[in-house]
Amino acid sequence: MQKITELELRALDAPINLADGHPRQELTESQRKIIERLPEIFEASRRQPFEEIGRSAQEKFFAALGQNAAPVASCRVFSIYSSSVATMMLGTVLGGLGHRVGLLHPTFDNISDILARHVEIAPVSEQACLEADVGRIAGFGVTCLFLTVPNNPTGWVLERSELARIISMCARRDLLLCLDTSFRGFDVRAQFDYYELLEHADIDYVVIEDTGKLWPLAELKLGFMTVSERLRPHVQDVFNDVLLSVSPFVAKLVELMADEAMDGGLDTLHKLIASNRAEVDAALSFLDGVELAEPEARVSVCRIRFPSARLAHAVRTGLAATGVHVLPCEPFHWARPEEGARMLRLALARDPSVLADGLAALRSVAARAARNGS
Amino acid sequence: MQKITELELRALDAPINLADGHPRQELTESQRKIIERLPEIFEASRRQPFEEIGRSAQEKFFAALGQNAAPVASCRVFSIYSSSVATMMLGTVLGGLGHRVGLLHPTFDNISDILARHVEIAPVSEQACLEADVGRIAGFGVTCLFLTVPNNPTGWVLERSELARIISMCARRDLLLCLDTSFRGFDVRAQFDYYELLEHADIDYVVIEDTGKLWPLAELKLGFMTVSERLRPHVQDVFNDVLLSVSPFVAKLVELMADEAMDGGLDTLHKLIASNRAEVDAALSFLDGVELAEPEARVSVCRIRFPSARLAHAVRTGLAATGVHVLPCEPFHWARPEEGARMLRLALARDPSVLADGLAALRSVAARAARNGS
Repeated sequence: MQKITELELRALDAPINLADGHPRQELTESQRKIIERLPEIFEASRRQPFEEIGRSAQEKFFAALGQNAAPVASCRVFSIYSSSVATMMLGTVLGGLGHRVGLLHPTFDNISDILARHVEIAPVSEQACLEADVGRIAGFGVTCLFLTVPNNPTGWVLERSELARIISMCARRDLLLCLDTSFRGFDVRAQFDYYELLEHADIDYVVIEDTGKLWPLAELKLGFMTVSERLRPHVQDVFNDVLLSVSPFVAKLVELMADEAMDGGLDTLHKLIASNRAEVDAALSFLDGVELAEPEARVSVCRIRFPSARLAHAVRTGLAATGVHVLPCEPFHWARPEEGARMLRLALARDPSVLADGLAALRSVAARAARNGS
Repeated sequence: MQKITELELRALDAPINLADGHPRQELTESQRKIIERLPEIFEASRRQPFEEIGRSAQEKFFAALGQNAAPVASCRVFSIYSSSVATMMLGTVLGGLGHRVGLLHPTFDNISDILARHVEIAPVSEQACLEADVGRIAGFGVTCLFLTVPNNPTGWVLERSELARIISMCARRDLLLCLDTSFRGFDVRAQFDYYELLEHADIDYVVIEDTGKLWPLAELKLGFMTVSERLRPHVQDVFNDVLLSVSPFVAKLVELMADEAMDGGLDTLHKLIASNRAEVDAALSFLDGVELAEPEARVSVCRIRFPSARLAHAVRTGLAATGVHVLPCEPFHWARPEEGARMLRLALARDPSVLADGLAALRSVAARAARNGS
């Protein structure tokens, strides 16, 4: 099975790229004003002490997403080049500590790929997590639970009480809790303060956050890895192998974008994604038996479900032939790919016109494929 | 023993930071003109196909450093966030292939730290490499030779004939050759075309290059990992786990800086480093028995040797107490730290005025320590 990133790479310069979940919409007017100031931001980033810049970026970003109890002041948030580099570091730490990991299923395949290089992993369903079902989560001798929330590609989220229940379970069973919250910014339901719960519980935890999904900044981004006190030395050790510091220029840019996000930018983004999701839904209404798999999701990707795996496959390859790239969902179902075979994933962080062109192609390719009996 | 990065981190916001080897000199006039164009560079990076941007950055950077035979066109150069992330990926690949690595000694400690998480490593001396001495290199069952050239901290370089001899040895003994050439840009003696030799030899190889040591760009940088054909799928696999693409904005910036480097910028940089090294040498002439350890080095760091380990230690701690940070050399000697105990490393990619302040402090602290019988 091909990796998702391989498929995304092929779509990178395609006429219509609805494959990767990176933000590719146009900048808003207020974001553009920040870009106009880049030379000044560059200069400022060379003058100010890095510690101030780094902390400020963390504080503003966490504040914009409601995470005010994050332990920024106690230096337990590490800034890294990207969330995937953070995952790679985490894999090294988990391997060193001899963990066995229960990993959410489905989720983005690079998490399972990275972790499996260091530790044994077993799939855990969203439903088992919602129910904090110890039997289905910790059965395989699991010592660590790794969740992507909001989940990519499903948009699955946890309510405050559900996260609290999972945390209690982890405390009771002495499970390390790892969360990848890269898509948090899209969903206000994931913006209650996770750290208030995590910091007050007697558990070890790691949270990976990502600035890279929100703003179309040509991949200028940071990953953050927040850790509980006991894990800090382990993470610091791996961190020291890899970097002295992230770019203060990027950190300053993140700070300014976070300010803009709080100042209305996040609302604007949410409206774009919601409206794009509604456009997908509307386009599907013309296609028999094709529907949004998770209509309640708010993340910047959506899945569409076809009546058959054959049709889903025919549509994806047919679209690719016309220069429109979307993703198959098998790789997300990293342990049981067949469960994703009827679904395709579409990116929503795109300009409406780009999406509209993609949807027009989807309608025509899907109708033709259905007629041809795929 | 503390890691180098830990010590560098402490120095990051110090009054006088002569610790890390990152470029912290002022931008030149022509570099400043590029920074003034950042908004335009940002826009262009969002419009142009990524493949073009990525390739162009690689071509220009390699050309600026004389590496015209690098296999850019055959897509065997991977662009990564940094050279250390490249090393981390390489460690994963080497571990997966079950290599045993002979690693240059001394060299920057994060290489041994990263590799040791994945493979067994054994120290190999610069002298053994110069002589392509199979006995001293491959004795321990080594299947891979990893060299930093120009070396950090010694500035050690290989002449063309010496590299050719090492390549022949690797071909004969079926050793994978890995080179970290992050400091290549400082030394024209390391700018003959390595890839001409590597591509025409029947060996597997990896070269890690780094744009991050040359230009004071607030850590906006790329690492490049070039690989021989047989290694490509292994590296591609690990690469796909970690990133879709580097920032096209950073890639465009690298391209423009490489142009500027070819257009005289590299000469200007070489003059700055040479003049700073001469300033260190001049300052040491006032101190009995203290000297440049490698006067012929051209990299952007230099080592100074003291008559005793005790004096070196007293000088470093005395300097730190006055806000001047330099590095001890024990951690570079990762297998036998005591061999570095009489030496300190000073960064040279600094403004002359910063270095002068550091050297004034060095002279007074060292004279006092010597009087006190350290």
